[in-house]
Amino acid sequence: MKTDIEIAQSSKMEPIVNIAEKIGLGEGDIELYGKYKCKISLDVLEKKKAEKDGKLVLVTAINPTPAGEGKSTVTVGLGQALWNIGKKTVIALREPSLGPVFGIKGGAAGGGHSQVIPMEDINLHFTGDMHAITCANNLLSAAIDNHIHQGNSLKIDSRRIMFKRVLDMNDRALRDIVVGMGGKINGFVRQDGFMITVASEIMAILCLATDLMDLKNRMGNILVAYNLDNEPVYCRDLDVQGAMALLMKDAVKPNLVQTLENTPAIIHGGPFANIAHGCNSILATKMAMKLGDYVITEAGFGADLGAEKFLDIKCRYGDLKPECVVIVATIRALKHHGGSSRDELTTPNVEYLSKGIENLEKQIENIKKYNVGVVVAINKFITDSDEEVKFIEDFCMKQGVEVALTEVWEKGGNGGIELAKKIVDIVEKGDSDFKCLYSENETIKDKIEIVTREIYGGDGVVFTKNAEKQIEEIEKIGLDKMPICIAKTQYSLSDNPTLLGKPSGFKVTVREVKVSSGAGFIVVLTGDVMTMPGLPKVPAANRMDINKEGTIVGLF
Amino acid sequence: MKTDIEIAQSSKMEPIVNIAEKIGLGEGDIELYGKYKCKISLDVLEKKKAEKDGKLVLVTAINPTPAGEGKSTVTVGLGQALWNIGKKTVIALREPSLGPVFGIKGGAAGGGHSQVIPMEDINLHFTGDMHAITCANNLLSAAIDNHIHQGNSLKIDSRRIMFKRVLDMNDRALRDIVVGMGGKINGFVRQDGFMITVASEIMAILCLATDLMDLKNRMGNILVAYNLDNEPVYCRDLDVQGAMALLMKDAVKPNLVQTLENTPAIIHGGPFANIAHGCNSILATKMAMKLGDYVITEAGFGADLGAEKFLDIKCRYGDLKPECVVIVATIRALKHHGGSSRDELTTPNVEYLSKGIENLEKQIENIKKYNVGVVVAINKFITDSDEEVKFIEDFCMKQGVEVALTEVWEKGGNGGIELAKKIVDIVEKGDSDFKCLYSENETIKDKIEIVTREIYGGDGVVFTKNAEKQIEEIEKIGLDKMPICIAKTQYSLSDNPTLLGKPSGFKVTVREVKVSSGAGFIVVLTGDVMTMPGLPKVPAANRMDINKEGTIVGLF
Repeated sequence: MKTDIEIAQSSKMEPIVNIAEKIGLGEGDIELYGKYKCKISLDVLEKKKAEKDGKLVLVTAINPTPAGEGKSTVTVGLGQALWNIGKKTVIALREPSLGPVFGIKGGAAGGGHSQVIPMEDINLHFTGDMHAITCANNLLSAAIDNHIHQGNSLKIDSRRIMFKRVLDMNDRALRDIVVGMGGKINGFVRQDGFMITVASEIMAILCLATDLMDLKNRMGNILVAYNLDNEPVYCRDLDVQGAMALLMKDAVKPNLVQTLENTPAIIHGGPFANIAHGCNSILATKMAMKLGDYVITEAGFGADLGAEKFLDIKCRYGDLKPECVVIVATIRALKHHGGSSRDELTTPNVEYLSKGIENLEKQIENIKKYNVGVVVAINKFITDSDEEVKFIEDFCMKQGVEVALTEVWEKGGNGGIELAKKIVDIVEKGDSDFKCLYSENETIKDKIEIVTREIYGGDGVVFTKNAEKQIEEIEKIGLDKMPICIAKTQYSLSDNPTLLGKPSGFKVTVREVKVSSGAGFIVVLTGDVMTMPGLPKVPAANRMDINKEGTIVGLF
Repeated sequence: MKTDIEIAQSSKMEPIVNIAEKIGLGEGDIELYGKYKCKISLDVLEKKKAEKDGKLVLVTAINPTPAGEGKSTVTVGLGQALWNIGKKTVIALREPSLGPVFGIKGGAAGGGHSQVIPMEDINLHFTGDMHAITCANNLLSAAIDNHIHQGNSLKIDSRRIMFKRVLDMNDRALRDIVVGMGGKINGFVRQDGFMITVASEIMAILCLATDLMDLKNRMGNILVAYNLDNEPVYCRDLDVQGAMALLMKDAVKPNLVQTLENTPAIIHGGPFANIAHGCNSILATKMAMKLGDYVITEAGFGADLGAEKFLDIKCRYGDLKPECVVIVATIRALKHHGGSSRDELTTPNVEYLSKGIENLEKQIENIKKYNVGVVVAINKFITDSDEEVKFIEDFCMKQGVEVALTEVWEKGGNGGIELAKKIVDIVEKGDSDFKCLYSENETIKDKIEIVTREIYGGDGVVFTKNAEKQIEEIEKIGLDKMPICIAKTQYSLSDNPTLLGKPSGFKVTVREVKVSSGAGFIVVLTGDVMTMPGLPKVPAANRMDINKEGTIVGLF
């Protein structure tokens, strides 16, 4: 069996100008980055303002398990399948972070016969968006410490600087550091830390901005610190948002690449799915909707985190109305949710499946609350038994939702025809009428209560003293009327990663509440979130190499 | 009078494919980065292996003064002038560092009617080379701390890690830091620091490498630390040089842009001119020599640092034989060297000039030691008197060197015709027979003595105890047979910045000797070198902005 990179290397890439042409983009609309990547000018949105938008379909999943679900692979495969049945489709995906490529798993861009290419570029520097974010972030950080050094007229409290530096690298030694040592010429000493670039608020802002001016304004609105009088200090007080916007002038433009079957794919922005909302940029999605009749996009983690944030944060800010949500599952993963051990996953077992399917059931129930269509996609494995497949089909019928088996890993677009057809049916029926789950004008606590009750299935919320105080502070500075972004374990519907399936009778504990005032959401932390990964004992970097002919090994 | 950016914005840029075509590059030889930038495939060097090389001309200067000399402007203007007299010429320049753009002076890329464009791209992310270096550098840093955290089988002494992290930002707070705080999961605590990206040894390596494999090998050779048994630990011991090379796979390719007069300019690599050798990459220069009949290139600071390192380090490793060196001076700067105060600079004064011209005299004498032709270029200002000009012309005649007045700032290529013609005369005569000043097989101390005596005009060298010890250590590990790279003030021929003109009777004090074993030179420090700049009270960033239409303000 071929590996992902072997499949990718044996594929025939079209020049990106041809891909662009397929969706009506001329030479003046794009900027080439080599032969197989380009950026799309934002003028295209203006030019096509009057034209009808394509239909938006979100791909999400059950709570992730070690068994794997293949959400990105289904997203790519589905886009390919829609072309195969004659629908002009554009895929919209997140950009991978460079740093983690050198960590445990190497790069990623779908899998098997459903990948986006050129993989090596997408996983390395791509078109430089991550680097632009790193620079803009660190310019603001340098400006903060420089301001303090140069007299601190804003009276910034160096103990209360929330804005951190970033690097796109897995580097645990930078998580907790002391800066400004070495005497007067190096500034004032304070404790600080680096996050990985995708955790930067600027990444979240890039993904929620509607144009460069909105991006600039939002960056200006970042709450960077409090001053010694307990008043908020914003990025705009340091007057660097213009320079930051300048650094982001190209990063704001969506990137176009292609899949193994030459389906257009826009890859742009990739915020964390816990402390941020975990979806590609609004600009990418809007661009895709102007260029395709169908747009297939993806959100991070399972539906309780990824889809909830896609729907309640991204769709709210982008004024997007998705028509249909695909929930990806595998029989193995559902059995894992039902208590199967890792060794038993490949043995047919309807009992585990019937217990674990509650996770899928709850995710279906949740999506329906948003008034959009739902389709279940079962990503098929060779070890799945007919009986297990039958069980799922019956289950979905009882739930009144469509289900399709997909084999997009093995067969590319041809493995997703059934799924594609079912989605087209739902979209063409036009029964969806998307609405958000809550109003942003509710109190912070009410918003958290609503998501906990309605989506997680919990009995209520416990706020730590710390969280209570932080909520008061946010209310005091008037930043509480924004959507919430809950950081919670992705492995469970609850805030306890060991509670699989569909847990009940639990309360969610909120430990910390912070405001991402530039991005425009309130981050609610239910546990520790690692914003700077580390490298494993033998990093993926150690097996990577490039030879004289430019052939790359070890990247995937 | 128009500002630099106004001149640049009113110029007519040619699509870069047209510029490439002018020098025989087809579509298959280049990779576009937008319409006005491209990278040149290294295959071109292989393809044109049998073809004759163009003639190499270096532009350097007297010791820099606050009055300004305009070395880059002359380099660009001279390239334009050579086209005007029918010579197919390619300019080879260093890439600017992004970080300092936000500091005091904003961006830079020549001046007046002798600039390279697109300025804003060249000064911001350009084609991502700096970012690739940042990543490769920080991957190695993360690997070092990770190795220690994961058991430290190499027994790295955390007190003796010489390899530092980098960021392309002026950020004084990062000069001296403590990393690894916060307990066991964050690794071991140690003192560390960030440098600016251009100070990374990887930048020096990029600029001295002859291909991607050489780049990889050199990166593997970086001395990163000593272990607890006092033995050297190299990058290759951590086995990440392959991944680092992967990150550098595009950065290794030279970038092509154009001047205001559509002259081809290759801009690639930009190492520090003190702790490194301060010239663009060997690959860029070699590429330019395959594409042009004349190649005009530049070195950092004055001739005592920039030209010496160009000739003794770059030409040695690149097997380059320059034909001619242009020494740029202004009458104002020479008067400054002669003791003129800033206020007096614009008043004609032959006395100051006759004293200050000793600096030029010494630089001419130095260049002649390398057996190459010399031309003096006087960058003309409106305040220069006829008498002063006459004085310089007489002086040069006595010295037996050609001199030309240039007005390339005001008139572009047409302001450099005389200079261009004089260079062509020298090159066509073909009298040059370049040789390095010293053999790399001399002892470290002898090499330092030779440069001090022959180039700086000093009486000898004083080594601190610390330096003595370091030299012994380098000899012990057998890395002493490499060229030296002296870090010294650029303002004086001596190691004392206040000694202008042509100081004599001084000794140079060597405080520290380090090895850049990947780059392949021994760094000799005669004083403190700042490897991470800071931002001023009002950073240039504060006046920068970009508006809705994409118009940039404040960048220059």
